[in-house]
Amino acid sequence: MSNRLFNFCAGPAALPEAVLKQAQAELLDWQGKGLSVMEMSHRSEEFTQVAETAEQDLRDLLGVPDNYKVLFLQGGASQQFAQIPLNFMAEGGSADYIDTGIWSAKAIEEAQRFGHVNVAASAKGYDYFAIPGQNEWQLSDDAAYVHYTPNETIGGLEYGWIPEVGDKPLIADVSSTILSRPLEVSKFGMLYAGAQKNIGPSGLVVVIVREDLLGNARASCPTMLDYSVAAKNGSMYNTPPTFGWYLAGLIFKWVKEQGGLEAMERLNQTKQRTLYKAIDSSELYSNPINPVDRSWMNIPFRLADDRLDKPFLAGAEERGLLNLKGHRSVGGMRASIYNAVGQDAVDALVAYMAEFERQRG
Amino acid sequence: MSNRLFNFCAGPAALPEAVLKQAQAELLDWQGKGLSVMEMSHRSEEFTQVAETAEQDLRDLLGVPDNYKVLFLQGGASQQFAQIPLNFMAEGGSADYIDTGIWSAKAIEEAQRFGHVNVAASAKGYDYFAIPGQNEWQLSDDAAYVHYTPNETIGGLEYGWIPEVGDKPLIADVSSTILSRPLEVSKFGMLYAGAQKNIGPSGLVVVIVREDLLGNARASCPTMLDYSVAAKNGSMYNTPPTFGWYLAGLIFKWVKEQGGLEAMERLNQTKQRTLYKAIDSSELYSNPINPVDRSWMNIPFRLADDRLDKPFLAGAEERGLLNLKGHRSVGGMRASIYNAVGQDAVDALVAYMAEFERQRG
Repeated sequence: MSNRLFNFCAGPAALPEAVLKQAQAELLDWQGKGLSVMEMSHRSEEFTQVAETAEQDLRDLLGVPDNYKVLFLQGGASQQFAQIPLNFMAEGGSADYIDTGIWSAKAIEEAQRFGHVNVAASAKGYDYFAIPGQNEWQLSDDAAYVHYTPNETIGGLEYGWIPEVGDKPLIADVSSTILSRPLEVSKFGMLYAGAQKNIGPSGLVVVIVREDLLGNARASCPTMLDYSVAAKNGSMYNTPPTFGWYLAGLIFKWVKEQGGLEAMERLNQTKQRTLYKAIDSSELYSNPINPVDRSWMNIPFRLADDRLDKPFLAGAEERGLLNLKGHRSVGGMRASIYNAVGQDAVDALVAYMAEFERQRG
Repeated sequence: MSNRLFNFCAGPAALPEAVLKQAQAELLDWQGKGLSVMEMSHRSEEFTQVAETAEQDLRDLLGVPDNYKVLFLQGGASQQFAQIPLNFMAEGGSADYIDTGIWSAKAIEEAQRFGHVNVAASAKGYDYFAIPGQNEWQLSDDAAYVHYTPNETIGGLEYGWIPEVGDKPLIADVSSTILSRPLEVSKFGMLYAGAQKNIGPSGLVVVIVREDLLGNARASCPTMLDYSVAAKNGSMYNTPPTFGWYLAGLIFKWVKEQGGLEAMERLNQTKQRTLYKAIDSSELYSNPINPVDRSWMNIPFRLADDRLDKPFLAGAEERGLLNLKGHRSVGGMRASIYNAVGQDAVDALVAYMAEFERQRG
């Protein structure tokens, strides 16, 4: 009997039960080969097949054009914050960044260590409750690229649009939105995503980068941080995180089985509508984000009286609704409803919210 | 029924079956909490307990002194090759390195990108079949540290001694020897090990570093590569590879249950003796390494006629003896016999080697 509960964690996040069951079944003996996928040489025929199939499935799902490399790396999005300027910004160069919250601020702070950052727009003027429209952006002529954060996992802000930046490479941290709906990869110079939300376990980062941008890393860039080295070596300059790569591959297959990204979009759209509707129609709960800028994946909400936070969380846990506590920097609640969190989980949450409001609101 | 075969892979390497079984049993529901350890927030009470227990067990096993930090990082030993100079060698500074084969050469090549490397000794004069004794080393006065590779995974060379380097920090890549026997941590400024041999799955690196060496990273060091940032944040500056950390913890417990590092030493000593004896007493097999410098963990051997390599490997596979092919840069055979490869595996290999020699030698 499975005792699986509903997990609203922002990351590492819930994984599809079917994927975990397959990983469990073959954990000691992968496809009758007599060893775990964790125990295989990354250069073996078997693991090469696992790795290449995963890449192809991701390419199929996103429709990645042939002139883009797909890389499977380590170090999380935080390491990307350094890799991006080290690879794409010359010494003494500059880049444009858009500030919409905690994660874009972290990207900015790290990039400032390697060159000039022009903060071309900031949500600060909106108390981080709205995304500045592109008419407010002050892009600079000499920027090596434009970086933005399509979804702020903590703040719960999300772009419903892709910026137009002319011929500058557009770089986006899609950690918390990748695979949640279709994405027009050709609009971007580079996309990157920590795996631990919609792709798999932590310790894996997926990078999708246009080939013509490679090969310009600074002399001071560590070899392991040079995308062109990873690209030339099929992400195996050294031993990659093989188990994470394998699990990502199982998840790509699972997304295909769900009907691909159009199907995920429909499911995710319904999920977020259900939850925002419950928030907006209540007297007790509220979400402060400008409606058109609301995140589909990470939905923060507050209770009218924060003395009710503790009983709300305790009751949620009793009902098997886990990890609803908001980020420590924001407080309140947050429900992260990535691909592996189903409509059933959202329905259970909404039912509990209504019950709690009737009893305590 | 388990169909587990004997796996002599150099890494990712065999893991203890008992550890894989525990991971399998609790993969969907960790200790009745209703979610996988992969799905837990790294900041949750539950994962904090997993992480802290793993660190404490490793400290117990190695007797790590209190003035050393234990870090759980990403990027493999190859990323350490850059992190070490970025953290410990000032701009324009230098360090001493000892060259004993492919892995020390890689460490040297990367360090040269960040400063002056004095190759204080090289095994080249011995065709990489012997380790230069310390009387041959030409250490420099201005070296920031001394780096060496206690075991060369590809060449099969291993130091049976710890170098004396006065008050210079001694830094060692113990990827392929950690936990194989006791280690006097206090002799070192820093130790580092990719997990995928004796610690766990790939994608995790364990660093043990003396506290007084921290806090001197270059201004150009990416935040994620600064050991002091990792140390201050308990290896959670960002999301760590949680599943690898958890598995490492299970392995530390398993090593304790085997009787700790003294017991592992006895087991490993017997295993390597068995295999070298089989090689040395045959007409068909040979190992070229100076006997006192032979590796316990990675044992390369050649057949007298390399036309026999293919039939040897085919027969081995038929008998469930996997991954005996030598590294492509060396050829021949290599048996990696880390902690999780038991005496039964070595006995089966030796029996097959004798059988093959009788039939084909």
